[in-house]
Amino acid sequence: MTVTRNTKNVPYYQLGFGAFASLEGMVDARRSPDSPSALFYVDHFFRGGGKAALPLPARGDDLVVFVDTTQEPTVENIDLLSGEAKAFFGAKKPCCVTGIGGGSVLDTAKAVANLLTNPGRARDYQGWELVKNTAVYKIGVPTLAGTGAECSRTCVLVDYSRGLKLGMNSDFTVYDQILLDPALTRSVPRNQFFFTGVDTFMHCFESLRGSYRNVIVDRLSDTAIGLCRDVFLGPGDMQCDDNLEKMMVASYIGGMAAGNTGAVHPISAALSTVLHLPHGKANCCALSVLGDIYPEEHALFMEMKADNGIDLPSGICRNLSDDCYEALYQASIIHEKPLTNALGPDYKTILSKDRLIALFKAM
Amino acid sequence: MTVTRNTKNVPYYQLGFGAFASLEGMVDARRSPDSPSALFYVDHFFRGGGKAALPLPARGDDLVVFVDTTQEPTVENIDLLSGEAKAFFGAKKPCCVTGIGGGSVLDTAKAVANLLTNPGRARDYQGWELVKNTAVYKIGVPTLAGTGAECSRTCVLVDYSRGLKLGMNSDFTVYDQILLDPALTRSVPRNQFFFTGVDTFMHCFESLRGSYRNVIVDRLSDTAIGLCRDVFLGPGDMQCDDNLEKMMVASYIGGMAAGNTGAVHPISAALSTVLHLPHGKANCCALSVLGDIYPEEHALFMEMKADNGIDLPSGICRNLSDDCYEALYQASIIHEKPLTNALGPDYKTILSKDRLIALFKAM
Repeated sequence: MTVTRNTKNVPYYQLGFGAFASLEGMVDARRSPDSPSALFYVDHFFRGGGKAALPLPARGDDLVVFVDTTQEPTVENIDLLSGEAKAFFGAKKPCCVTGIGGGSVLDTAKAVANLLTNPGRARDYQGWELVKNTAVYKIGVPTLAGTGAECSRTCVLVDYSRGLKLGMNSDFTVYDQILLDPALTRSVPRNQFFFTGVDTFMHCFESLRGSYRNVIVDRLSDTAIGLCRDVFLGPGDMQCDDNLEKMMVASYIGGMAAGNTGAVHPISAALSTVLHLPHGKANCCALSVLGDIYPEEHALFMEMKADNGIDLPSGICRNLSDDCYEALYQASIIHEKPLTNALGPDYKTILSKDRLIALFKAM
Repeated sequence: MTVTRNTKNVPYYQLGFGAFASLEGMVDARRSPDSPSALFYVDHFFRGGGKAALPLPARGDDLVVFVDTTQEPTVENIDLLSGEAKAFFGAKKPCCVTGIGGGSVLDTAKAVANLLTNPGRARDYQGWELVKNTAVYKIGVPTLAGTGAECSRTCVLVDYSRGLKLGMNSDFTVYDQILLDPALTRSVPRNQFFFTGVDTFMHCFESLRGSYRNVIVDRLSDTAIGLCRDVFLGPGDMQCDDNLEKMMVASYIGGMAAGNTGAVHPISAALSTVLHLPHGKANCCALSVLGDIYPEEHALFMEMKADNGIDLPSGICRNLSDDCYEALYQASIIHEKPLTNALGPDYKTILSKDRLIALFKAM
C-alpha cells in the first residue's frame, strides 16, 4: 500500500505566444494599499533597450533587480538579495514577487519570497519542510524551458562552503501563478536551449528508471519525454515556434511529474558545486558517461545532441588534483535519495570511488 | 496568437490505495473555533454498515448527507441541500465540504459549497463566471472514476423545467484537495465502471478532434486516452487493482486536460435531460451512433465494449412522441460551443433535425 505525499500543483497557468501581456494585470491585481509595490527578478539578459528587452509592467515604486545568471544561485547571493528587498520594502512587504528568466532566476525569486516571510538565512531552509510560513505571492515567467523550476517545489541553491547543492523543498516554494509564453524563448542561444531543454528528458527518464514510482508521475514523465523527442528528434528545427511551445509544455508537464531523480543529477550536482558548471550542461556531461547505467537513454541523448549540432565540452575533468577528484566524489555520493532510487541501497558499492572518478575523467 | 484562459489546477492531490485514511487529518486541519463542524456528501451506496460502508471521519456535530444518485443532480435538489446545510450550520459555516462518490456526488458538493457563500439559488449560477465569492473549502474523494469531476471547474446540474443541463463554470467550483484512492472503486458494478470510465475517453477524444486546442490539453488528453486503452483493452481485467489505479489517474489527467467537448456530449446531455439517462450510459448511447463523425473512436469504443462484455441498452429512443423527438433535438442543438468545436459554425446544417432524430431512433 503506497500512497503518495499530498502533492501540490501550480494553482494557475496560462499558455501561449503572447501570454506575457497578462503579467501586468496579474501584478496589478495583487497591489493593495498595504502592499502597493511589486518585486521583480529578471535575467540580466533582458537588461537594457535592445531587442532582448521586455516591456516590464513595473511602476516607479517597484523594485526591479536584474540577476546575473552566469553563476547558479548561491545561498550568499540569496541572502544579499533578500536583505536588499527587506530594506527596500521596509515593514510593507511586496505585493508579489515575479521571476522572469531561466531556472536560476525562477529559483532566486522563489527563495527570496520564502525569506521575506521566514526569519534567518537561505541555508537555514536548505532541506525538506523547513519553511514554516506562507511565502509572498509569486508569479513565474520562464524565458528558458526545461528545468521545471516553474512548477517544482524546490529552489536549488549552491553552498560552496559546504560543497552542497540543495533546495528549499516545501509546498510554500511552489509558484502561485505561471505564465508560459514560448515567444520569450525565441532569443535563447542554440546550445543553451538544448542543454536546458534536455533537463526535462533527464529528470523524467531518471524518474521512470527509478524505484520510487507512481502512475501519475510515470504517465506525466512519459508525456514530457514524448514532447522532448518531438522537439529534438522530430520534424522542424528544435527552435521553430511549434517546438518552442512544445518545449515549454514539456518543461511544465515534466515539472508537474516531479519524480525522483537518479544517477545523472548527483553527478551533475558535483560538477556544479566543484567546477561551477551550469546545471543543464553539467547534466549533459554526466549522462555522456553513463551509458552503462542508462544505455537506451544515453543512445537517445547522443542522437539528440548529434541531430541538433550541439557541442558538449570534453575533457573538463582531466588533470585535476586529487583533492578535486575527492571533492567531486563526495559531492556526488552525498545524494543518497536519488542514488538509492537509481541503484538501490548498495549504491556506494556500485558507484565506488574508483568508478566515479573514472567517469569524471572520461567526460 | 492564441493564449489559453488562465487555467486553474486542483491545488493538492494524493494518490494511492489507502489514501482515504488521510481524509480525517485533512478535515480536522480545517476545523476552527469559528467553524468547528464539517459537511459531508456521500453516495447513498455507502450508507449503512455493510461491506460498502466507509469509516467516515465525521464527529457528532458534523452533518453527513447521503445523496441518492439514481437521478443526476438537479437545481431543485441542490437548493434543498444547500437550504438544509444553511439551517444546520446557521451563522457558522462548515469548516469544509467533502464529496465522496461519483460525478453526481462530487458535483453536488461543489454546487452546495458555492451556494453557502453566494446568495440565491442554483440556477442563478448555471453558466460561466457567475459565482462571485470564494466557496467553502472542498475536498473531493471519487469512488467512481471517469467523469473528471474531481478536477473540473464545473458541476453539472439538470434543470428539467428549462430542458437544460448546465454547470456552474467557475474557478471557485474547483476542489481545493482531492484524494484518489483506487480501493474505493473496488465495489463498483461492472457496467457502471465501464460507462463512467469511458467518459474520460470520450471527452478527451472530443477535445482532440475539435478545433479549440492547445498543446497542454492535447498531450494530457493523449495521456488519459492511453490509460483508458490500457484499462479497457490491455492485459488484465478492467477491474484488477492495477487498472483501478490507472482508471483513477486517467480520470484525473483527463479532467486536468478539460478541453472542449464535441458531438458526443450534446447528444448525451439531451438523453439525460429528456429521458433521465445517467451521464456515462448516455455518452455510450450517443457514441454508438456517431460512427460517421468519429469513425476511429467509434470503432475503438465498440471494441472496448465487446472486450469487456458490456451491455448497452438499445432501442431507447424508438417509438417516442413527436414532442419528445423535438425535445431531444432542442436539448442537443442548444450546445453551441461543443458542436461548433466538433463540426464548425455550420453545425446546424450538418446536424440537421432530420439527421439528429434519425440518430436517436438508431440507438
